[in-house]
Amino acid sequence: MMKQFFYPSSIVVFGVKDDPKNLAKNIIANCDEMEFKGNLFPVGRTTGKVFGRTIITDPKVLPNDIELAVILVPADLVPGTLEICGQKGIRHAIISSGGFREFNKNGKTVEKNVVAIAKQYGIRFIGPNCIGVICSNSGLCTPFSPLQPKNFKKGKVSVVCQSGGVSIQIAYHFSEEHLGFSKIISIGNKLDLNETDYLAYLLKDPETSQVHLYLESIDHGRKLMQLARETEKPIIIYKSNIGSTSSEVARSHTAALSSDERIINGAFRQTGIVRADSIHDMTVCAKALQLRPLTGDQLVVISLSGGFSVILGDTCENYGFSCPQLPPALIKDIESFRRGGVIQMSNPMDFGDVHNYEGLIFALEKCLALDFIDGMVLSLMYGPDMACFFGTEYEAYNTFLDFLSNLSQRFNKPIALSFFAERRFIDTFKKSNVFPVFNDPIESVRALRKNRDYWKVKKHISTIRSC
Amino acid sequence: MMKQFFYPSSIVVFGVKDDPKNLAKNIIANCDEMEFKGNLFPVGRTTGKVFGRTIITDPKVLPNDIELAVILVPADLVPGTLEICGQKGIRHAIISSGGFREFNKNGKTVEKNVVAIAKQYGIRFIGPNCIGVICSNSGLCTPFSPLQPKNFKKGKVSVVCQSGGVSIQIAYHFSEEHLGFSKIISIGNKLDLNETDYLAYLLKDPETSQVHLYLESIDHGRKLMQLARETEKPIIIYKSNIGSTSSEVARSHTAALSSDERIINGAFRQTGIVRADSIHDMTVCAKALQLRPLTGDQLVVISLSGGFSVILGDTCENYGFSCPQLPPALIKDIESFRRGGVIQMSNPMDFGDVHNYEGLIFALEKCLALDFIDGMVLSLMYGPDMACFFGTEYEAYNTFLDFLSNLSQRFNKPIALSFFAERRFIDTFKKSNVFPVFNDPIESVRALRKNRDYWKVKKHISTIRSC
Repeated sequence: MMKQFFYPSSIVVFGVKDDPKNLAKNIIANCDEMEFKGNLFPVGRTTGKVFGRTIITDPKVLPNDIELAVILVPADLVPGTLEICGQKGIRHAIISSGGFREFNKNGKTVEKNVVAIAKQYGIRFIGPNCIGVICSNSGLCTPFSPLQPKNFKKGKVSVVCQSGGVSIQIAYHFSEEHLGFSKIISIGNKLDLNETDYLAYLLKDPETSQVHLYLESIDHGRKLMQLARETEKPIIIYKSNIGSTSSEVARSHTAALSSDERIINGAFRQTGIVRADSIHDMTVCAKALQLRPLTGDQLVVISLSGGFSVILGDTCENYGFSCPQLPPALIKDIESFRRGGVIQMSNPMDFGDVHNYEGLIFALEKCLALDFIDGMVLSLMYGPDMACFFGTEYEAYNTFLDFLSNLSQRFNKPIALSFFAERRFIDTFKKSNVFPVFNDPIESVRALRKNRDYWKVKKHISTIRSC
Repeated sequence: MMKQFFYPSSIVVFGVKDDPKNLAKNIIANCDEMEFKGNLFPVGRTTGKVFGRTIITDPKVLPNDIELAVILVPADLVPGTLEICGQKGIRHAIISSGGFREFNKNGKTVEKNVVAIAKQYGIRFIGPNCIGVICSNSGLCTPFSPLQPKNFKKGKVSVVCQSGGVSIQIAYHFSEEHLGFSKIISIGNKLDLNETDYLAYLLKDPETSQVHLYLESIDHGRKLMQLARETEKPIIIYKSNIGSTSSEVARSHTAALSSDERIINGAFRQTGIVRADSIHDMTVCAKALQLRPLTGDQLVVISLSGGFSVILGDTCENYGFSCPQLPPALIKDIESFRRGGVIQMSNPMDFGDVHNYEGLIFALEKCLALDFIDGMVLSLMYGPDMACFFGTEYEAYNTFLDFLSNLSQRFNKPIALSFFAERRFIDTFKKSNVFPVFNDPIESVRALRKNRDYWKVKKHISTIRSC
C-alpha cells in the first residue's frame, strides 16, 4: 500500500501555474533536479508551460495509470481535486495545501469532506499541510520550496517529520553529517495516515536501517510503543511542543496538541526509543547506533592532547562512565613508544608524546582487548602535526579508519572517534564514510552514553521476551 | 613588562636542529607564515640551516637587543639556557619544554633552579610546559607543532589557556566562528607568571574586548575575583579537571590540582564571570556578549518555519524566558502581509506565510519597539526559498544584517539571529561580520540566556559599588 508514495511510476501535480510566484511548479523542478525517473504531469487552471512541460487544464486527458497525486490548491478546492483523482483511479495522494483544521473552524469541515471522498475511492493520503516525500533512491522530491537536491546524500536513515521546514533542514543537515537518508516524510496534520503507519512501513523497509521521527504530538502512543518493542531497528524521536509557550504556534502549525512529557519519557525509556533534543542530536544518535553495542561503563580514553584528555575525563565521569587504571605492564609498553619521554601515561591517556603509527596501533589494540574495558574514546587531531602518524598522504587516514572498523568488529566493542581539527578536515573524514566520525570529543562520549542506554533497554526487553 | 611577550622586536629560539623530527624549528616556520616582522635567531648544538636561517651554535654571537627567548630544550638543560639569556640581557622567555614538576620529582628540583636564575636576572617567563603565544597582530606564533596560521582570523577576543592542544584548537575554532582573536597565551605550569597576571594585562589591553580562559586549576582565586569585579570587559572561563577521572591526567598534563567546584561556581556567579562548558560554548559566550544587553525575560520569537517556532517556544521556556502575547492590532497588521493567509500569527511567530521583505522589516521593527519586549530571537533560513525576501543577490543580506544591527542599537535590545541552512551558507553570513550569527536557533536562545545572566550580575555589582 505504501510503496507508491516513494516509488510512483508517474505523478500528477495539481495547482501549477506559469508564474514566478507559483509554488506547485517547484515540485516539478525538485523532482527534475533529483532525477526522478517517472512521468510528471502538471495540472492547473491556466494554459502555459513549466520546465518544458505543458500545463494540463482538463484533468480528464490525464492517463489512467498515475500512481500518485500531489495537491497544492487552496484548501476549499482540495475535496474537488481529490474527487478528480478518485475518478482517474489514483489511489495515493500527498495533500500539501495548508488552511485546514490548523487554521480555522471552516478548515475542519473541509477536512471532513476530504476524508469522505478519500474513503469513497479508497485513496490513502499524506497531509494535509505538509511537503510530502523526499526519496533519495527514486528521486521523488515533493516539497514546494525550491531546494538543492543535488546536495542530498543517500543513506539508510529514514525520517518521519511533523514539520515541513524541519524536514528540509533534516535533509540538509543529515547530508552534511554524511549520514544520508533514504526517505523523509513530512506528515502534516495526519488526517489519514499517521506517524505509526509510516513507522510500521519503514521498520520493514530494507532500504531503512534506523527510523527518526520529529513529532509535535504523539497521538497513537500505544501503537508506537508496540512497534518500538518489537523491532530490531533503532527508533529515535525528537519531540517538541513541550511547554505552554509553543502550544499555540504548534496548534496553528500542525494542529498538534502537546502531550504529557513524563508519560512520554517513561514510555520511551521502557521501549528503547532514543529521545533526541535537537536536529543535530538526531545525527549524533544516528552515528551512536551505528557503533558496536556498549555493554558496560568502563572506557579507555586516548587523546593526542593533554588538555582534551582532561576534558574527556570530566565528560566520561559526567555521563556515568569510569576510566579504570590500566595494567602497569601495558602502560610501560606504551610508554616505550614515547619520543620525549616527558608525559606519564594513564587513563585517560595523553598520547601527545608518542609520534608514530606503530605506537598508536599497539595502544589501541592492547587497550581495547582488555577484558574490563567495554569501549574506547579516541580523540585525534588533523593537520600537519599528524604527519608523524599518518604521513602526508590522505590515503593513510582511510587505512586507519579501516583498521578501527575491523578492530571494533573483532572485539565487538565500540570506538567513538573524533578529530579535533578545522572543520574542512573533519568533513573530509566524514565523507570517507568508512567509520562514524563525531564532531568533537565531548560529542563522541555523549554518543557512547546513548549507545549504552539503548542497548541496556534492548537487552532487558529481549530477556523479558525469552522468559 | 608584558608587551615584549607579544610584540618583541626580535626573538631567539633555543633547541633548533636541521632535522625533520626537530620541533623547535616549527616555531620559526609558524612565525614566518604568520608574517612576524621581528628578527628571528635559531640556536642549536649542530650547525645547519632552517628556513633560510643559519643555526647559531655559539649563543655569544647573538645580538644584545633580543627581547624574547623561546626555549625548547630538554628540561635539565633549561636552567643553563636561561642563564645564557640572562647574560645576553634577555628579560622575557617562553619555556616550552616539558618534563618538569608535571613529570617527576626531579622536575621539581630543576624548576627551583629555573626560578632562581630567572630571579637573579630579572627574567619573567611563560611556562614551562606550554606552547607560548600567538599574537594575531604582530604575527608572533610560538607553538612548536606545524600550524596553518594563514587560517587564523584577527579579532578582539584574547585567550589564556592552560593547555597547548586546547590553545591551538581555540585558535582554529574561534577563527572558523569568525570571532577571530587578538592574543592566545598557553600558560603551562605557571611557574612564574600565572593566569591572573595575563588576565590583568589583557583587561587593560586596547586590542582586547573580552578575555576567555581555559583552566585546569584556579590557584589565585581571590585575585581572579577581584579583577572580575572591577573590569568592564567580559571574562569567560572554561574550567575542566572537575572530577576524579581527569585529576591524574591533569596533574601529569599541567601539574594542575582540581579545585572545589561549588566554591568556583559560587565565586563566578558573584563576580559575573561567565562559565563555558566547551570550546564551542566559549564562542557562543563571545557572540552572546557582543549583543546589546538583555535586561528582562520577555522575548519575541520570529521564525520562517512553523516547526522551528515550536522548537524555539520550548527552548525559551526551558531557559526561563517567556513569549508574551502581542497586541491584536499589531498581529492583524502583520497578518496583512501574508500570501496564502493560511497561518495564524502568535508569539512565537510562524512567518512561513509572509513572502516579502517589507513585511519582515515591519514585523521586526514593530515587535522590538514594544515596551514589554526585552529582546528578539530571529530564525531565518537561507537558500533559494528566501529569494522572496532578499532577491537572489547576496548583497541584500548584508543590507539586512546592517538593518538588524541598527535596529538593535536603536532600541538597545539584543537580536539573536540564526540562519538554519546548509553550513556553507551560514559560514558566508558569519564572514560578513556585520552582526553576530549563531549556528542554529537553539544556540541563539542559549546565547540570550548567557547575556541576560551576565548583565543581571553586572548591574547588581555596579549597584553595590554605587551604594
